[in-house]
Amino acid sequence: MDLSTQTTILHAVDAVFDREVEFLSELTGHASTRGQEQSAQDFMASELNARGLEVDRWTIDVNDIAHMPGFSPVMGNYEDAVNVVGTHRSVSQKGKSLILNGHIDVVPEGPLDMWDTPPYTPRIDDGWMYGRGAGDMKAGLASNLFALDALRHIGFAPAANVHFQSVVEEECTGNGALACLQRGYRADAVLIPEPFAQDLVTAQVGVIWFQVHLKGVPVHVAYAGSGSNAIEAAIPLIDALHQMEARWNHAQNRPAQYCDHDHALNLNIGKIEGGDWTSSVPAWCVFDVRMGLFPGQNIAEAKRDIETVLMEAAKTHSFLSNNKPEIVYHGFQAEGYALADDKGQVAKQAISTLENAHYAVTGSDLNTVAITATTDARFFGLYADTPALVYGPRAEAIHGFNERVELESVRHVTQTTALFIADWCGLEKL
Amino acid sequence: MDLSTQTTILHAVDAVFDREVEFLSELTGHASTRGQEQSAQDFMASELNARGLEVDRWTIDVNDIAHMPGFSPVMGNYEDAVNVVGTHRSVSQKGKSLILNGHIDVVPEGPLDMWDTPPYTPRIDDGWMYGRGAGDMKAGLASNLFALDALRHIGFAPAANVHFQSVVEEECTGNGALACLQRGYRADAVLIPEPFAQDLVTAQVGVIWFQVHLKGVPVHVAYAGSGSNAIEAAIPLIDALHQMEARWNHAQNRPAQYCDHDHALNLNIGKIEGGDWTSSVPAWCVFDVRMGLFPGQNIAEAKRDIETVLMEAAKTHSFLSNNKPEIVYHGFQAEGYALADDKGQVAKQAISTLENAHYAVTGSDLNTVAITATTDARFFGLYADTPALVYGPRAEAIHGFNERVELESVRHVTQTTALFIADWCGLEKL
Repeated sequence: MDLSTQTTILHAVDAVFDREVEFLSELTGHASTRGQEQSAQDFMASELNARGLEVDRWTIDVNDIAHMPGFSPVMGNYEDAVNVVGTHRSVSQKGKSLILNGHIDVVPEGPLDMWDTPPYTPRIDDGWMYGRGAGDMKAGLASNLFALDALRHIGFAPAANVHFQSVVEEECTGNGALACLQRGYRADAVLIPEPFAQDLVTAQVGVIWFQVHLKGVPVHVAYAGSGSNAIEAAIPLIDALHQMEARWNHAQNRPAQYCDHDHALNLNIGKIEGGDWTSSVPAWCVFDVRMGLFPGQNIAEAKRDIETVLMEAAKTHSFLSNNKPEIVYHGFQAEGYALADDKGQVAKQAISTLENAHYAVTGSDLNTVAITATTDARFFGLYADTPALVYGPRAEAIHGFNERVELESVRHVTQTTALFIADWCGLEKL
Repeated sequence: MDLSTQTTILHAVDAVFDREVEFLSELTGHASTRGQEQSAQDFMASELNARGLEVDRWTIDVNDIAHMPGFSPVMGNYEDAVNVVGTHRSVSQKGKSLILNGHIDVVPEGPLDMWDTPPYTPRIDDGWMYGRGAGDMKAGLASNLFALDALRHIGFAPAANVHFQSVVEEECTGNGALACLQRGYRADAVLIPEPFAQDLVTAQVGVIWFQVHLKGVPVHVAYAGSGSNAIEAAIPLIDALHQMEARWNHAQNRPAQYCDHDHALNLNIGKIEGGDWTSSVPAWCVFDVRMGLFPGQNIAEAKRDIETVLMEAAKTHSFLSNNKPEIVYHGFQAEGYALADDKGQVAKQAISTLENAHYAVTGSDLNTVAITATTDARFFGLYADTPALVYGPRAEAIHGFNERVELESVRHVTQTTALFIADWCGLEKL
C-alpha cells in the first residue's frame, strides 16, 4: 500500500470516529446479557442492512451444532440465541477474504451499587467509555464496522468477501461462533478485536465449566452434627480443586507459550447457592466452577481428572461419602489454542499484515501475548484451519464494575483494522 | 378428678379422634410456609368460629411490638402475617385460665425429589402421618383443638377462660407469639404441644440469626489471584464461627440443665448465595447463620462476640481485610428459657397437673428434657411471668424430608391435654 493511501485511510477513520463513538455508546446501552441479546442484535442487523451488507440473522438450533468438534453442552434450548452476519460481496474478488468477528453477549453486571454510574448508561470520562460490555467487546464490534465505514468514506470497499459476524454465547460456550462455521462461513483469516490492549494474542487457554451438586438428608438444626451440612460439604471439595489447580499449573505441565507464567490456569468458584432456611441444616448446595487448561491439554482427560479429584475428596467426608457429589457439565468445554503453533503460510502472512498495520498506526512493533482466558478464536484456528488474529483495544475491569475502554485505543484499532483490510483484501472502488 | 370422669374424657378423645386425624390432614395440606399462612389461618378461624369460640384474627403491626422485650428484627413488613386466636369465655370462671398455643408456620420443604410423596399431600403409613408441618406443629394445633372438642363431646367446657392461639413466625422470630402478648392475651399457664415425644421441655436454648454479607471489587477470572473471591472468603469466616461454637459449648459455660450435653449449641450455615457468572470472580456472597445460646446467656454480649470473631478473622485475609464483612441481624434474637428455673407455685402446680394427666394416659412418669432448639414458650415464661409447658407428640424428620408424626402419640397428647384442661381449668356443663 502506498503511503498516501495509508494516510488517507487513517484520516478516514478519524473522520468517522465521532459516529463510531456514538454507535458504541448506543450498542453498550443494550443490556445484552445471555438470553437478552435480541435488541442489540436487531440494532446490529439494521446497521449492517443500512450499509448495504447482505444480512443473515438466524436462531441457533442446537441440533445443527451438537455433533461438531468444539461444541459445548448447554442447559435449555437456544430459542433466544440469535446470530447476525453481514456479508460484503466483492465485485473484483482479487484479494483474500476475511471474517470480522465479535461477540454481542456481555456478562452480568452484578450489584448495581458497586457501579459509579449505571452499567447500561454509557458515559465518557477522561477518554474512557464506561459501561458493561463497552470493552468486552462492543468496542471491537464498533471497530470492525467502522473500519469498513472508513474505507467506504473514501470510496472503497474490500476487494474480497468480508463476513461481519456478531455472535452470541462467547462468554459461556462459544456456540455462537461454532454456529457460524456450521452455517458455512469461511474466509482466509479472522480478526477478533477482543480487548487485549493492542497486543496480538498468540495463545489462549482452554476453559471448562462444571457444576457440583451436593444433596443429602439433613436433620433439624437442633441435632446438627459436623459433616451433615451440604453447604459446608462444599469446602473440602473446593480445597481439593485448588490442589488440582496447583498441579495443573506446575512448571513441567506448561507449554512453551506459558513457560514463564506461574499461574495461567485459574480455578474460579463463580457461583454458589444452597439451603433455604436458616434453621434447617441445608440438604443441598450447588456451586459453579470455571477451570482453565493449557493448549494441547485434552478435555476428556481434564474432565476425568476433575471427577477423580472430587470423588477422592468425597471419600473421607462423612456427608459426601454417603451423598456423592454429582458433576454436571454445562457451558465451556473449550480447548486451548495457540496461533503461535500455526506454522502455515497463511498465518504467517496474516500476522505480518497485522504487524505492518499496527506499526503504521502506532509506530511500535506488535507485541504478542499468551492470555489466561479463552476467545472464539479457537473455532477458526482449531476446527476450520483459519488463522484467527485476536487484536483489540485497551479495556479495564472487564467482568468487573466500572468496565471501561480507552477510546484512543479504539481509534487505533479501527485504523489498524482498516489498514489490515486494505492490505489483506485489497481495495476496489465503490 | 374422679376416675370415672377421667375415663369418660379419655374415651371422648377416642370418639373424636378420627375427625382429629382428618383435621390434621386438611391442615397439613395448607403449605403454610412463612408469608403463605393465610389459607391455613382462614381454615383455623373458620374451625374456631364453628365451635362458637370468639375469633380474633389480626395482621401483626411491627410498630406495635418493636419496643417489646423478646422482639426479633424482621426484613420487610408484616402485611402477610396473620394471627388467629379463639377465646372460650367460661360462665362459671371457677378454674385457672389457660393459653393453648401452637404455630401455623412451617419451614420450606426443600427439593421435592427428596420426598417420597409430596410434602403437602399428607398420607398415613403404619400409624404415622407424613407431610411438612404434620409434626412441627400442626399435630399440636389439632391436639389443642380436639382436646376441647372431646370435652364438648361429653357436654363440658373449661371452667375458666381458654385462649386457643394459632400464631405465625415461630420458625423465624417468635413475633407471632409476642404479638399475642401485646394484644393482651394472658392466662395462668400456657401449653405448647411442640413435638418432643411426650417429654416435658424444662429448658430450651436461645437462637440468634444473622447474615454475613461479603462484597468487594472482583476481577476477570483470567487475573484471579487467591483471596479476591467473595465466595471463598466465606470459608475462613465459617471456620472462625465454628471455633466460637466450640468455645460457647465448653463445659464451664454450660448451665445446669445442659451440663451433660456436649454440644447443645449448634451453629448452622443454613443458606448461602454468591456470584452470578461462572467466569466472573464473584464480587459478593451472603450466608445465613443460626447459632444457639444457653439460657442466661446475654444476647447483646453474644452479638458482640460474633462480631469480634468475624472481624478478627477478616483482619488477616487479603479480600476481607479490605472489604469488611457486614453483619445483618434479621430473625431470631431469642433468649434461652428454662421452665426448671421457675420456682413459683403456679409453675409447680402446672407441672404437677401435667404429670398427673400424663400418668393417667400413659401409665408412665413424665420425663423432662432440655432441648437444643427454641420455642415460643420463652415469651410467656420470660416476659409474662407465665409458666409455659412444652409437651407434644412424637415426630421425626422435622425440618427434613418425609417429616412425620406418630398418630398414637397425637391421641395420647390429646388425651393428656383434655385431662390437663379438666384439672387446671375445671369443667362446667355446656
